[in-house]
Amino acid sequence: MSDQLVPETRVLAVASHVVYGHVGNTMATFVMQSLGCEVAALNTVHFSNHTGYRQFKGTRATAQEISDLYEGLCNSNLTDFDVMLSGYAPSAAAVEAVGTIGIDLQQKAKSNPGSFFWVLDPVMGDQGRLYVNDDVVPAYKKIIPFADLILPNQFEAETLSGITITSLATLAQAITVIHKLYSVPHVIITSVQIAQLENSSTEKETLTVIGSTTKSDGTPRLFRIDVPALDCFFSGTGDMFAALTVARLSEAVADCDLRTTKSWVSPDEVAATDLPLAKATVKVLSSMHSVLEKTLESREAELAIEVPDVAGLGQEERQKREYLRRTKAAEVRLVRNTSVLRNPKILFEVLDWKKEDLPVDLQ
Amino acid sequence: MSDQLVPETRVLAVASHVVYGHVGNTMATFVMQSLGCEVAALNTVHFSNHTGYRQFKGTRATAQEISDLYEGLCNSNLTDFDVMLSGYAPSAAAVEAVGTIGIDLQQKAKSNPGSFFWVLDPVMGDQGRLYVNDDVVPAYKKIIPFADLILPNQFEAETLSGITITSLATLAQAITVIHKLYSVPHVIITSVQIAQLENSSTEKETLTVIGSTTKSDGTPRLFRIDVPALDCFFSGTGDMFAALTVARLSEAVADCDLRTTKSWVSPDEVAATDLPLAKATVKVLSSMHSVLEKTLESREAELAIEVPDVAGLGQEERQKREYLRRTKAAEVRLVRNTSVLRNPKILFEVLDWKKEDLPVDLQ
Repeated sequence: MSDQLVPETRVLAVASHVVYGHVGNTMATFVMQSLGCEVAALNTVHFSNHTGYRQFKGTRATAQEISDLYEGLCNSNLTDFDVMLSGYAPSAAAVEAVGTIGIDLQQKAKSNPGSFFWVLDPVMGDQGRLYVNDDVVPAYKKIIPFADLILPNQFEAETLSGITITSLATLAQAITVIHKLYSVPHVIITSVQIAQLENSSTEKETLTVIGSTTKSDGTPRLFRIDVPALDCFFSGTGDMFAALTVARLSEAVADCDLRTTKSWVSPDEVAATDLPLAKATVKVLSSMHSVLEKTLESREAELAIEVPDVAGLGQEERQKREYLRRTKAAEVRLVRNTSVLRNPKILFEVLDWKKEDLPVDLQ
Repeated sequence: MSDQLVPETRVLAVASHVVYGHVGNTMATFVMQSLGCEVAALNTVHFSNHTGYRQFKGTRATAQEISDLYEGLCNSNLTDFDVMLSGYAPSAAAVEAVGTIGIDLQQKAKSNPGSFFWVLDPVMGDQGRLYVNDDVVPAYKKIIPFADLILPNQFEAETLSGITITSLATLAQAITVIHKLYSVPHVIITSVQIAQLENSSTEKETLTVIGSTTKSDGTPRLFRIDVPALDCFFSGTGDMFAALTVARLSEAVADCDLRTTKSWVSPDEVAATDLPLAKATVKVLSSMHSVLEKTLESREAELAIEVPDVAGLGQEERQKREYLRRTKAAEVRLVRNTSVLRNPKILFEVLDWKKEDLPVDLQ
């Protein structure tokens, strides 16, 4: 059993909690724990279910409540974290409060380079639109310079870089700008539809993940991994990606003795495809693909069960019930699929970035 | 892997959440998930750490917030739970709110006997004193008649039965009274110091767990399991016991086809030592003993690390730091010890209750 676990890693996970289903910390905590990480979950919201159901009940933590919980940890010397993973925060003030925590942990670790690593998922929006208040964007821009790895999706990368991603070259440019503007050494852009960028007819069938770790001169080392897209929308996949990345990066970095190097940045001679970040991402995506395939199977079985007809329901109520049923059926199946989290069958490979796909100044 | 998991069980777990360490839902959720249960965690408090540190920060959920979260689940048809495990609630009103949830789930399952089972841990106090407000006691007394299994410790059993436990006979009497007074079919009294009751000189070296499932006439079927006590105080062991019991009872009940019998009560001809509750408890205690032994080892290693001296600290501050350090070192080690949760080495046996240890009316 224990040979399937990653090296001991103590993680502070700051994200949302839902009672039912798996998103935010309710996804990330169990995923990291399954791989052997000790996780402290600081919850930024307490909702009944994820917002994909289009209705929920619950409360949001205030910035003060987030800061207080951290103060409680400090008071009792419970801050010996190796990694912080920060995700959704429900307001600009909450993002600032989370930022203050990350910066404080970094300060505490200052004399031991590499002893603390901050993975920041700048949860702001998707598919061309913000789903947070406008003031959350500048709040993230202020704290990202303190993070070691950020995990924007395509829209968030555009928001942070100011570059509209319309091609592989502009994608590479966006990453280059993010590295420079925020001095953030590692970036992964999760889920880009390259086919769409290339106007290919296979649109939507492949998702591409692009990652990069800077060299000492600040230029990117770009790699890409293509994965087949599954024909279903799952909530919480970004959180699963982030959680698996924490565990697998911790493992990959231990394997190449980078745990005492500031921000876990590999020496310049390490090629993009040999980066710990690249190796970790391959395992992450392999686990995810297997879990989501198993989820699809369970979803089909669940949807195949006939629903007893309730007499007297209006069309609208019928549609709503069916929507809720389909949303529930698509909840990611985690607890009975931990073997593929722990022991992924490697399904994908890291690809080199073709020279012709780079912007001229990087060729 | 999956052969080490219990049958699929969907659990609503209502208890406290702490950021750091493992107590309440932060213990129970992961333990049940490790065994393959799908767990929805409804958190009644959000604290930085457990109260054994003698200081903490955080907030308590109001009764209204607890009810709202459940209403959110109802609104989206997310209440298909097989089991509810309810633990600490921070006020009498919160206990009532939790009770209303349990009763509602029971109502929903009324036409399918055995399809819902409520495990209630009446968290009120320990070692002779209440650590909740006085009004919490009557609040529990009101809702226990709806529970299927309750898990009081010795003090809570005394509080609920009105019987002071001074001997094995009075212990059996207390259980008999609890069965009758609250019509609760299953009871386990966790941790009784029998040696103390018997005025034995081996005091404190053995803990005894006493369980019972009623026969159809309401009389108890009593069994006992003795386990060696470990020389350290661990927080969250009650929650670990409850969580493992949910998973193992679900498994034992499936093994003997009781899943469609009301309250999972075995036919009268099943002897006390053959009860699913007894079989489950043996596995539960075996897993716990192994996890706690591993925790003791890790604790010793952690305490052996020399603490750098900080000049200028007063005696009081030094003592406080050492207390916090020792409390932290005793946090139960879960994530790297899941194999003993999943696959316990059976260490204990179920003992028959000797006739002479029964009160006269049960002999």
